[in-house]
Amino acid sequence: MLKRYFPILEWAPQYNRETLGNDLVAAVIVTIMLIPQSLAYALLAGLPAEVGLYASIAPLVIYAVFGTSRALAVGPVAVASLMTAAAAGNLAAQGTPEYYGAAIALAMISGLMLTLMGILRLGFLANFLSHPVISGFITASGIIIATAQLKHIFGIGASGHNLYELATSIYEHIGEVNYYTLAIGVSATAFLFWVRKRFKPLLLKWGVKPKLADVLAKTGPVLAVAATTLVTFGFGLADKGVKIVGEIPQGLPTPRIPSFDPELWGQIAIPALLIAIVGYVETISVAQTLAAKRRQRIDPDQELIALGTANIGSAISGGFPVTGGFSRSVVNFDAGAQTPAAGAFTAVGIALATLFLTPLLHYLPKATLAGTIIVAVLSLIDLGALKRTWSYSKGDFAAMLATILVTLGFGVELGISAGVGLSIFLHLYRSSRPHSAIVGQVPGTEHFRNVDRHEVIVTPEIFSIRIDESLYFANARFLEDLINDAVAANPDIEHVILMCSAVNFIDASALESLEAINNRLRDAGIKLHLSEVKGPVMDRLKRSHFLDELNGRVFLTQYDAIRAINPRAAERAVSAERNSASG
Amino acid sequence: MLKRYFPILEWAPQYNRETLGNDLVAAVIVTIMLIPQSLAYALLAGLPAEVGLYASIAPLVIYAVFGTSRALAVGPVAVASLMTAAAAGNLAAQGTPEYYGAAIALAMISGLMLTLMGILRLGFLANFLSHPVISGFITASGIIIATAQLKHIFGIGASGHNLYELATSIYEHIGEVNYYTLAIGVSATAFLFWVRKRFKPLLLKWGVKPKLADVLAKTGPVLAVAATTLVTFGFGLADKGVKIVGEIPQGLPTPRIPSFDPELWGQIAIPALLIAIVGYVETISVAQTLAAKRRQRIDPDQELIALGTANIGSAISGGFPVTGGFSRSVVNFDAGAQTPAAGAFTAVGIALATLFLTPLLHYLPKATLAGTIIVAVLSLIDLGALKRTWSYSKGDFAAMLATILVTLGFGVELGISAGVGLSIFLHLYRSSRPHSAIVGQVPGTEHFRNVDRHEVIVTPEIFSIRIDESLYFANARFLEDLINDAVAANPDIEHVILMCSAVNFIDASALESLEAINNRLRDAGIKLHLSEVKGPVMDRLKRSHFLDELNGRVFLTQYDAIRAINPRAAERAVSAERNSASG
Repeated sequence: MLKRYFPILEWAPQYNRETLGNDLVAAVIVTIMLIPQSLAYALLAGLPAEVGLYASIAPLVIYAVFGTSRALAVGPVAVASLMTAAAAGNLAAQGTPEYYGAAIALAMISGLMLTLMGILRLGFLANFLSHPVISGFITASGIIIATAQLKHIFGIGASGHNLYELATSIYEHIGEVNYYTLAIGVSATAFLFWVRKRFKPLLLKWGVKPKLADVLAKTGPVLAVAATTLVTFGFGLADKGVKIVGEIPQGLPTPRIPSFDPELWGQIAIPALLIAIVGYVETISVAQTLAAKRRQRIDPDQELIALGTANIGSAISGGFPVTGGFSRSVVNFDAGAQTPAAGAFTAVGIALATLFLTPLLHYLPKATLAGTIIVAVLSLIDLGALKRTWSYSKGDFAAMLATILVTLGFGVELGISAGVGLSIFLHLYRSSRPHSAIVGQVPGTEHFRNVDRHEVIVTPEIFSIRIDESLYFANARFLEDLINDAVAANPDIEHVILMCSAVNFIDASALESLEAINNRLRDAGIKLHLSEVKGPVMDRLKRSHFLDELNGRVFLTQYDAIRAINPRAAERAVSAERNSASG
Repeated sequence: MLKRYFPILEWAPQYNRETLGNDLVAAVIVTIMLIPQSLAYALLAGLPAEVGLYASIAPLVIYAVFGTSRALAVGPVAVASLMTAAAAGNLAAQGTPEYYGAAIALAMISGLMLTLMGILRLGFLANFLSHPVISGFITASGIIIATAQLKHIFGIGASGHNLYELATSIYEHIGEVNYYTLAIGVSATAFLFWVRKRFKPLLLKWGVKPKLADVLAKTGPVLAVAATTLVTFGFGLADKGVKIVGEIPQGLPTPRIPSFDPELWGQIAIPALLIAIVGYVETISVAQTLAAKRRQRIDPDQELIALGTANIGSAISGGFPVTGGFSRSVVNFDAGAQTPAAGAFTAVGIALATLFLTPLLHYLPKATLAGTIIVAVLSLIDLGALKRTWSYSKGDFAAMLATILVTLGFGVELGISAGVGLSIFLHLYRSSRPHSAIVGQVPGTEHFRNVDRHEVIVTPEIFSIRIDESLYFANARFLEDLINDAVAANPDIEHVILMCSAVNFIDASALESLEAINNRLRDAGIKLHLSEVKGPVMDRLKRSHFLDELNGRVFLTQYDAIRAINPRAAERAVSAERNSASG
């Protein structure tokens, strides 16, 4: 029981020198990768650079205690940072204490929500985000993020909550471009692209082992940071208008529980929920993918608690919302992390950096961080998914496209809400017209098949219909219409048999529809029968009055039903093929 | 084609003297019933009495042209009137031109929405209102309406948008009670109850034919109106504080197209949509029930157009939202209405009443109308449904109870929205954990059944799972978790077979989950196979890359799969029982 809520008790007792060695190596590599990322995502969230470092300490330690994934690396990520900027930017101007307070509150509330969802085992809520919606949302977020970073590359002031505002704002300010900044930004970005695309193949050609090459390729951002910081410092570019990170307070944050502000919390509850769910979906899919590689198990409900407490920890230590990052977790895994302790060691690394390295980052140009972000998010943009989804399912394509367009045009919160709404709508629409078939008897057998697809025998006074879906409110009326129309069109019908072989559930709405159908058929002098009702469905029907009022009977099989109603026709059908086969 | 949109072309050519006679009788009876109802529901909607009459003329004529039901009687009804009062009351005070304008705009917008939904064939939208939600909503509305009428019975001023506000307001003003009004109100209500419960049995005892007794029992309100009007006039009670209907403008309304006011329309779009959908659901269920009795057909999409144009007609002639009323339609049907012409004749009757009878209604006490409303709506309150739903389905019970409580506590709009939201949520929750079974081979056969329910044969290296629902975004993750857990728990597993006999659809989310499962199993050295994939599902899968990347195979039947993977085990299972049967 205790192990369920504290997975650390599972692995800590078996911890030995070998796992320690592996975890330490992974931690060093992830730390090197995480320092520039932390600073960059803080910049993206509109927060001071040190906040990114704060968000990379406590959450990692907490995840090591509560997390069930052995390799997941939590911390600031691009999409959650953008969502933070959007939500906090609605309430206050960047740089104000209110803005920072809103970012902390977002981490706190989404952390509390996730923890509560975990305790109540509400992980299924994340299912409401369909894959096309998430994919579209991440693509659109990537486009917005990359566009927003252009102002740092150009060294101009620009702002906006959607693509149009951003693009026009950049266009208006383009005259104010600072060429030193542009030179640094473009060369850093180009270098990072080169590292990403060409450096690993080059290393492999030089005979470097693949795993090491992978890891070395991830050091690109650190090299870019070091080089551009040195250049900016050496040539005094800060005095020539190149925006730098500047003074970063040295030392660790003092833990402080965010005060409860009902007005503020009310205003950011919805964005906090969206950040929580988007972050959780990302986290769980990364964790499951990595766990499966080593045949390990993830507990999705415990992951809610782990991610939730990690966010609460981030808020208490002055950080902003955190999530399990994809590329970072893969690096951690590939570098050999065996247990979540690797995350705790990474936290120690970031803490040491916060204590001792921050003075070195004083002259780091913001343009370099912008380049880091651009290169990172361009890999998130997957427009090919639009084409793949189009060819697979038009409905899913519509949900994806709507999510992308609304996110680009009206911002992240409306974008994701529109996508979720449309997914649910399309699902209900689809299941409101379930697949159904009028069935007849296959000659020579006791089987029944679709009259449109098979040569089957039907008798005019019997209308047998099979619905291939559970009956519930969205399709209850469909069934009513179907039977009403059939009965109105065929005056010969005396019996309607509803074949329930594919019905796993009948909700109260569908029960009332069945009652209405039964009453209407009775008024028209027609009997309603059921056949092949599954055990759990029958148990439930027995708890209602429907079976008492049913004006026909319930049969175990469709053949039993036909035989009871018209014995001669049923037996003639069974012998039909047999005779012709023997003759 | 023309007949589809103008069902009048269907029946008008066959119109003869006999149908005319039947329709005229029905029209007279419905007119007598409709006059007090129209006035009462206008009062309930917070509108001048004549508006109720206006809403009972043009809509009936229009429905006769566009409607597909032969017996439906449209006009003002209780629930729509309450919803009108709630929506208009949010924008202006009762008695102001703005309030009346809002009521007209509600009819106009809901009419346009319904007509558009009909043209676009969006009738399935009404499915989103599950039966428990409608039932709970109508019950709660009935309670609110009955409570709100108490102020007219007591002759006091009181107001409120929810049960609590209403009850406290009535309690505060109870000292101002007017005893003349109370006497009229209580005796009218008691009389109407008596007519409803005891008059028909009495008539039957006197030897009156059942149908005629039914009709006579419906004349109660007219008697109550006549008697209390005479008393009020004769004793000059209006001067003693009894509130009367007063001056009703004589003459028909001048048609006027409501002007388009973007601000107003924006404010009432949501309430108008709710009125439209609630009204449509009520209309269609009444229409279908009556049509089935005579084996006639209703076109649900055309009914949208008919109800929509009827509402537009109501708006243009100065009326408020109308709906197909249940009791009125039943009276129309029982009185022998053969075609929608009966409705048009009723409209003539109401028009004549508006022209010539309104002076007689001057001294009609509002308390009598309140009594009419109370007696009418108490039949809508069905608290027994709560008990029935509880015993059938806890989830549906929760949706019903939530709808009732939120409607009573926070008003009609929030109530119905909460019910719809909860129904959809519960449905998604239910289908996020679909029924699934690990299956094994039934000895002596090629059939496969649930290992928990049957004596079946399984081999440790093969994990066969059957999901009894279509795969889509709400349950895609469930499948991932299920297979991940099984594989992590059973190190012997080398093959996973997904038996798709109950899968009618795989959406893009589930496809990605299958791809993720396939990749994870491949990483763990396990093969993923599919069996019994239905034709349409297979066609769709072929449009994706999944089948190319599948690390196992697709088998026509589950038995084929087992035989291909482990021929000896499969054949041993088939011969198992056979041997024991022959031995």
